[in-house]
Amino acid sequence: MKKTDLHELRKDPLLGRWVAVLNQPKAPSDYAISPVVENEGSCMLCAGRESETSPEILSLPSGHGSRAWATRVIPNVSPVFQVEGELARRGEGMYDKMNNIGASEIIIESPEHMVRPEDKGLDQMMKVIRTYKDRMLDLERDPRLRYTLIYKNSGKEAGAIYSHPVSHLASTPVIPKRVKEELDGAKEYFAYKERCIFCDIIREELRTGSRIILETRHFISFCPYASKFPFESWIVPKRHSCSFQDILVEEIEDMAFILSSLLKKLRAAIPGLAFNYFIHSAPNRIPRKDHWHTLGEDFHWHMEIMPRLLQTSGFEWGSGFYILPTSPEYASNCLREV
Amino acid sequence: MKKTDLHELRKDPLLGRWVAVLNQPKAPSDYAISPVVENEGSCMLCAGRESETSPEILSLPSGHGSRAWATRVIPNVSPVFQVEGELARRGEGMYDKMNNIGASEIIIESPEHMVRPEDKGLDQMMKVIRTYKDRMLDLERDPRLRYTLIYKNSGKEAGAIYSHPVSHLASTPVIPKRVKEELDGAKEYFAYKERCIFCDIIREELRTGSRIILETRHFISFCPYASKFPFESWIVPKRHSCSFQDILVEEIEDMAFILSSLLKKLRAAIPGLAFNYFIHSAPNRIPRKDHWHTLGEDFHWHMEIMPRLLQTSGFEWGSGFYILPTSPEYASNCLREV
Repeated sequence: MKKTDLHELRKDPLLGRWVAVLNQPKAPSDYAISPVVENEGSCMLCAGRESETSPEILSLPSGHGSRAWATRVIPNVSPVFQVEGELARRGEGMYDKMNNIGASEIIIESPEHMVRPEDKGLDQMMKVIRTYKDRMLDLERDPRLRYTLIYKNSGKEAGAIYSHPVSHLASTPVIPKRVKEELDGAKEYFAYKERCIFCDIIREELRTGSRIILETRHFISFCPYASKFPFESWIVPKRHSCSFQDILVEEIEDMAFILSSLLKKLRAAIPGLAFNYFIHSAPNRIPRKDHWHTLGEDFHWHMEIMPRLLQTSGFEWGSGFYILPTSPEYASNCLREV
Repeated sequence: MKKTDLHELRKDPLLGRWVAVLNQPKAPSDYAISPVVENEGSCMLCAGRESETSPEILSLPSGHGSRAWATRVIPNVSPVFQVEGELARRGEGMYDKMNNIGASEIIIESPEHMVRPEDKGLDQMMKVIRTYKDRMLDLERDPRLRYTLIYKNSGKEAGAIYSHPVSHLASTPVIPKRVKEELDGAKEYFAYKERCIFCDIIREELRTGSRIILETRHFISFCPYASKFPFESWIVPKRHSCSFQDILVEEIEDMAFILSSLLKKLRAAIPGLAFNYFIHSAPNRIPRKDHWHTLGEDFHWHMEIMPRLLQTSGFEWGSGFYILPTSPEYASNCLREV
């Protein structure tokens, strides 16, 4: 079996959700070994050990003419999705499956093991955001790929396996269910109101002010009205735009500031916090511009940050209904004042 | 503030998901205290300490004429939903909210602290299932309630706060999103095929056999084709029926057997396993029989058991796309043979 055939994609016939199934299955005892969060001495993501990783996909230099890198993108060591091959959809009895065409990448956010981009200064965070943008623009050109998700796992409880500051990228040959739900929800609102729901949310949040954490020229950050998790925070651009990739130069600087500030605030309010974040942008446009009926009028890209303070229980998994012990109004007030 | 007004329900305008927001918010430091899993000496759920809990809602005797109880239902100590009051839906700016009408109950599955129903024998598990049925039948009569979810959290990683064997019940004034998705998926399949998707899945699984764990006269248990979690297992009745409450006496005995066997197998295969399970049944019928267009032809009740071996990451939360390191074929083989 080739390394690239490690997974197959299967569709849940009831919910339309996809899962990637590992072809060489893990036995129950394999789960007992907790994921290796490497320490500094053995971290091959650190500067100076580039030869130990797969060849890099992209790197941004630390300064003009510098040979040192600020951010660096490499293929995932255990890729779920792989770039090589043709899309092949097929049936299996009554079920549907396909091969795992896509991309799995690691975005190294800092050359130093213990230095987070938000602590390294605005310039470093701007480079992280530019790296996200550059990779998304590149992958959007591949007509087999429908969606690219940028996400971050920080802390063991959030599923992190590296202690070096990294984000991840996953490109998938289908539009993931959670994204589809947002697109459908936004479309339905637009059909009813003829306005973008995110633009309406921005106006509502600025009007009441009670859930705002930070406001800059181009962005607002707030705790959503019906947050799923305590201290959940969103960053939304004020300018209506469906695609993160279309972010402007001045917006990158502003986003670097609001993201750095928010992460520092979250860590100050809740020491040792584990969290995830991800960017929700419109699906890839190039391969099927004709399907993008509303020309992006009804969707609005944004970032969601999810602190992992609580264990989900059978109630959440069984119902999709969440219990929020800290109101968004209280959470945003904590974060404003910290 | 009355104890009964502890939560308000808010609707996510984008996804249609509901959350219950606690009115007296937890501060960040409150999360540091891990939930109290009480030990035997201080457990008020044990037999003999009935006077320390709220008055019981229901109990089933341990034998004919016995004054000892086998199972016992009490109101949740920190209820998210409350029975008293009128349904009141209202707007808040552009958002929607309502009060927390419903029910939050604890189903004590065994009088002894350390004895799980599956280890106590078939008769005890039959009583647990009868208790589920009796509570659902009772709550279905309340026209304000749209749905009742029976669920179980076993182990800290699964969100358990009691070490005494318990299940939980939550009745909600809305159909929860995850249930709605299943109903919609099943309806769509029925519209296309004119067959119940669950009946088709049963036939397919029995035909291939590769994902079956156990088969009895009235039930099958298998690992679903596109499982979300490793060792995920479902129990589905062979007789088409949309409502768990309509379970027949002979089916209760059979279900007690298959559920006990499956739980023992899971614990044998993965010692110390944390898991959740829940029953998905059709929404309450009495208040709005007219809305139940297809008379239950397209839905089929079942139980889902979700082992909690993995941390979910930003990928799962951001995409709704899951990675399964153990295939259902391998998992069901493990469980068959253990």
